Amino acid sequence: MQSKWIWYRGDYEIYHGLKLHERRREFGVEIPAFWSQPTVYPTVTFSKSFECERDGYVRILGCGSGYVNFDGWKKFRLGQDIFFGPGKHAMEIKITNLFGLPCIYAESDTVCTDRSWLVSDNTCEFINAGDNPAYTDPSVTPENFPFSYRRIYPVSSKAFGEGMLYDFGRETFAELFIENSVDNAGLTVYFGESAEEATDPENAYLFEHLEGMMSYRLSSRAFRYVYIPDKLAASLKLSAYYEFVQLEDIGSFECDDKLINDVWKTCAYTFHLCSREFFIDGIKRDRWVWSGDAYQSYMINDYLFHDNDITRRTITLLLGKPPYKQHINTINDYSLYLICGVWDYYFSSGDADFVKFIMPRVKALYDFIVSRTDERGYIVARPGDWIFIDWADLDKDGAMAAEQMLLYKTMKAMSRLSSVCGEDGSAYDASAGVLYDAIQRDFWRPERGAYVDCADSGREIVGRHTNVLALMCGVADAEKTELIVEKVLKNDEIPHITTPYFGFYELDALCGCGQLEYAVEQLRSYWGGMLKLGATSIWEQYLPHEKGAEHYAMYGMKFGRSLCHAWGAGPVYLLGKYFLGVKATSVGAATFEVRPQTGGLEKIMGTVPLNGGYVYVEYENGKLKVYTDKDGGTLVLGNKKLALVKDETLVVDISLHDAV
Amino acid sequence: MQSKWIWYRGDYEIYHGLKLHERRREFGVEIPAFWSQPTVYPTVTFSKSFECERDGYVRILGCGSGYVNFDGWKKFRLGQDIFFGPGKHAMEIKITNLFGLPCIYAESDTVCTDRSWLVSDNTCEFINAGDNPAYTDPSVTPENFPFSYRRIYPVSSKAFGEGMLYDFGRETFAELFIENSVDNAGLTVYFGESAEEATDPENAYLFEHLEGMMSYRLSSRAFRYVYIPDKLAASLKLSAYYEFVQLEDIGSFECDDKLINDVWKTCAYTFHLCSREFFIDGIKRDRWVWSGDAYQSYMINDYLFHDNDITRRTITLLLGKPPYKQHINTINDYSLYLICGVWDYYFSSGDADFVKFIMPRVKALYDFIVSRTDERGYIVARPGDWIFIDWADLDKDGAMAAEQMLLYKTMKAMSRLSSVCGEDGSAYDASAGVLYDAIQRDFWRPERGAYVDCADSGREIVGRHTNVLALMCGVADAEKTELIVEKVLKNDEIPHITTPYFGFYELDALCGCGQLEYAVEQLRSYWGGMLKLGATSIWEQYLPHEKGAEHYAMYGMKFGRSLCHAWGAGPVYLLGKYFLGVKATSVGAATFEVRPQTGGLEKIMGTVPLNGGYVYVEYENGKLKVYTDKDGGTLVLGNKKLALVKDETLVVDISLHDAV
Repeated sequence: MQSKWIWYRGDYEIYHGLKLHERRREFGVEIPAFWSQPTVYPTVTFSKSFECERDGYVRILGCGSGYVNFDGWKKFRLGQDIFFGPGKHAMEIKITNLFGLPCIYAESDTVCTDRSWLVSDNTCEFINAGDNPAYTDPSVTPENFPFSYRRIYPVSSKAFGEGMLYDFGRETFAELFIENSVDNAGLTVYFGESAEEATDPENAYLFEHLEGMMSYRLSSRAFRYVYIPDKLAASLKLSAYYEFVQLEDIGSFECDDKLINDVWKTCAYTFHLCSREFFIDGIKRDRWVWSGDAYQSYMINDYLFHDNDITRRTITLLLGKPPYKQHINTINDYSLYLICGVWDYYFSSGDADFVKFIMPRVKALYDFIVSRTDERGYIVARPGDWIFIDWADLDKDGAMAAEQMLLYKTMKAMSRLSSVCGEDGSAYDASAGVLYDAIQRDFWRPERGAYVDCADSGREIVGRHTNVLALMCGVADAEKTELIVEKVLKNDEIPHITTPYFGFYELDALCGCGQLEYAVEQLRSYWGGMLKLGATSIWEQYLPHEKGAEHYAMYGMKFGRSLCHAWGAGPVYLLGKYFLGVKATSVGAATFEVRPQTGGLEKIMGTVPLNGGYVYVEYENGKLKVYTDKDGGTLVLGNKKLALVKDETLVVDISLHDAV
Repeated sequence: MQSKWIWYRGDYEIYHGLKLHERRREFGVEIPAFWSQPTVYPTVTFSKSFECERDGYVRILGCGSGYVNFDGWKKFRLGQDIFFGPGKHAMEIKITNLFGLPCIYAESDTVCTDRSWLVSDNTCEFINAGDNPAYTDPSVTPENFPFSYRRIYPVSSKAFGEGMLYDFGRETFAELFIENSVDNAGLTVYFGESAEEATDPENAYLFEHLEGMMSYRLSSRAFRYVYIPDKLAASLKLSAYYEFVQLEDIGSFECDDKLINDVWKTCAYTFHLCSREFFIDGIKRDRWVWSGDAYQSYMINDYLFHDNDITRRTITLLLGKPPYKQHINTINDYSLYLICGVWDYYFSSGDADFVKFIMPRVKALYDFIVSRTDERGYIVARPGDWIFIDWADLDKDGAMAAEQMLLYKTMKAMSRLSSVCGEDGSAYDASAGVLYDAIQRDFWRPERGAYVDCADSGREIVGRHTNVLALMCGVADAEKTELIVEKVLKNDEIPHITTPYFGFYELDALCGCGQLEYAVEQLRSYWGGMLKLGATSIWEQYLPHEKGAEHYAMYGMKFGRSLCHAWGAGPVYLLGKYFLGVKATSVGAATFEVRPQTGGLEKIMGTVPLNGGYVYVEYENGKLKVYTDKDGGTLVLGNKKLALVKDETLVVDISLHDAV
């Protein structure tokens, strides 16, 4: 019997989301997130009935002010010992916390706090409380996020200007610790993801002025380099506390190309750095939770940690609470990705309990989305909307095909999620059917074998974004898919996508239609290109034609580019899904297939997590080995299907280069 | 040009409401309010455009983290000086405050912060910011409520048991200040509204344990007596800081009966004590904001302070924010009183600006109310509802007439409020018409000349509550009103209401039909009765048959009764409205009538506030004097109407005993 801290389910994420979104700093200016944010319920009621056979006691600890109502109308203070005899008992705890997260913890020989308790926002709707295995210690409340810390040291330092430049060896996110200062000396510390940034006080994105103490442990920041332009710097002792979440790499990948192996490792490290309270976009900037970025992180997570908790946390925060007055992150497509992400999460995890909890909020968001469609049922720009899709120069003069395709996928997700909750989702299917026909009618161009970006504008542009989304969203039937693959995806006259955000979807689509050699080429040139320039984490963007510090500029700032961005970690997903070839084929990976492909590599080996289990795949010299600790696997080799047996290694002599 | 702190309008009230509702303490246990509470928007955007003819500067101070975007994309820190030249400028300030009230203040030679600024909750809906004349000082933020303090001292002290009992002379609400303690001594301080309470450590409602300091300034509490059961008490120096809001008594009343004069003064003092951040029910318990109690306070306020700000604050807090998931204070009738109160506030103040601000919330609450009516359109008990009306033993087995009458009044209020906002309210009138007919059909009993409390139960009880509400809510036509007055109000066989809460409405109705002698008798026996027992403020309840400390018991607690309760201040309203006879007859008191009546008193004189102006009335020995500083007044003497002239005294020789 182990008590855990409990709270109003979902409010833990909202509380830590508020804290996270307040922490962005840029050139000494605090930049809170610009979208509307939900709040925790400040006053809640916890309730529990139990029965015991002997005498017992309970003491309720809490964050906030409140009281315990035990067996009726007797009121006890928080922290007060309550003694009781054998029999049936009922407890109700009312607590209010204006400045934090209302939560409680029971110390008792008889009853423990956990998600079996009920909780309400002081209305008559009770739900199961939220808890988390990280919070079993009564002295560590859920107002603290359970980060781990590891002491790290500069790998080198050198004199620079008047002061010293320290190199921590690779990109990190850590609390800088400065010792041996002089208490009346003022210091300024400049952080840099690059040495150029750290040593450019005018343009460094992050800096801090210090004064009055002998040692300083600073707020956690993204950096590799630290520059202190002061004579005093030489006598300082610098180290840092690397701040991270305990997430285990289950996924792995190795092949015969060291560069690709390094790419995988750097991607995995990048993804660790960006997987924190939630999936964030990057660790220097914005350090915010964006639904579009997060959607890709859900995909990568499934091939690296397969940590369901961080995906649930991220979805819960992004959804916030009704009433919805704007799109998620203000972006129409991000609302759609979020609902699709709830279905994908369910498919990946089989976690129906979470779906049932979150579904009222999902429905409210869906209703908001649909309430703003036009007379054709199309998503169009309404006041406050940001029709994004990508930074690329897309034809947005009217209803975009891309938005409608995502809406179609969302409607299908709503239908399936309804089934998970035991509800009839046929109305969503009916809406999806109508929208499907409208999309074909208004955007499909048979003569071009492709969808156009926008029909209203008359410009009739066929671009990759729209057609990649058509495949992703299930809008194109088999015949149209074949045409899109030929006429768009494999057609070099249609320019490739240049942003890494959407480039991830393009690569996914290309791999999905067998273009693994293109992916290998991209791994070597795009990701490998960054590594050759010394990257220790994957950048927000890489443009091979840029030179030197040009690589660090973005959004009009000399060092505005993030050098550690989650979406750059896509290769972890691509290598696991298409090379090792592992893919769940039913909810919670109850069944899955393994369809290894080399893409021209000589040797591939690695592991893919599968919702509590994993698959190991190794191929070299015409010998394929597949091991899994899970039931339900099928090895697919061309037209041949071989059942995988749990806890056994299947060895097949086959040349993957010929067979697939 | 004077800057004021500004915030998201309405959030100031919500912030201070959260703080207030967290502060109740009972026998050392913290008792937060049990209903659901709204929260402030944690992230907001302020916006302002201005033009200037010469160079200027501005520095934005704020509570929270955020930045100033000046003339485009240049971002400044809060507190940073921004210099600008002549011309057009635009500022946008984004601020987030997780633990308080996001608000800003401009220090500038050119532009000041006030309600002309726009503010949004980071959606694209901007409204005018909130401000208040109390917040012009940059160092005093609106996170502090602008209480005033006055030092007060005990009027006597005496040894009691081991320690000392201090008497502050009358009921007060103050921060006790204890000096001359010994730092290693532990003290316990017991507060009492009565000496019996203070000296009964087992049963005193409020107490505090102190230790470790030489002097203590405690949180503000309700008390008259303080008991410290310790030998050390004799050497202590006690005083207190009376905490109050600066509210000016405009209303006054005097007559030839000293007891009634004392009743009026004690009522006024009681009302001062209960008029704080908001109108609260009582100062010891609950110290919460209840919509039913507040509704009566709005009425009394109009006859004492006529302070529009405190009524606005109270309405704003009680309404909170959509979505509504429960009734106000969980009570169906309290939701209805709240909407009626918005109309009454408008009628009293003419403040259309406030109505336009609050109307979206009012509509959402109304929709919630109507969404829970039954197939007859009647309010019935739904899960989580508290059908209250009064503590009395009422027939609640089915739809109660009282709730439907209040709903009718609410529908009429919605229609009128819609007009104030320039919207068509005819749908509300139509609903009201249908409900009116249903009420007559189901609840009126022509043979009894009265409405029954409940039709569903079959018990056919005719009570005063229902029939008083019928008059208050405009449900009874002239003919029915006459019957109700005869068959119910003036019928001593129908027992009088025994609770002071609803008794106020009964007295109002009785005075409205001319029963002033009954009111005078009640003033002498009920209110006078308390004073004769030594009351220095008006109690929550007074039952003449009780003896000694029985008067202090309630809700199963020996000292559970509040000895300072707002609803007890009703005589201020009754004496002003029916004796001095002053009543607004159009919105904002643009017109008003004065219809003095003596109720058998020899002499009456006093003042009634009239939304920025006032009326003075004096009658003695057949001479009536009326003075007003406002246009629009009419003196009504029986069938005779005399115009009052602003700034002139009208003198009429008349015997009020004969004439009316």
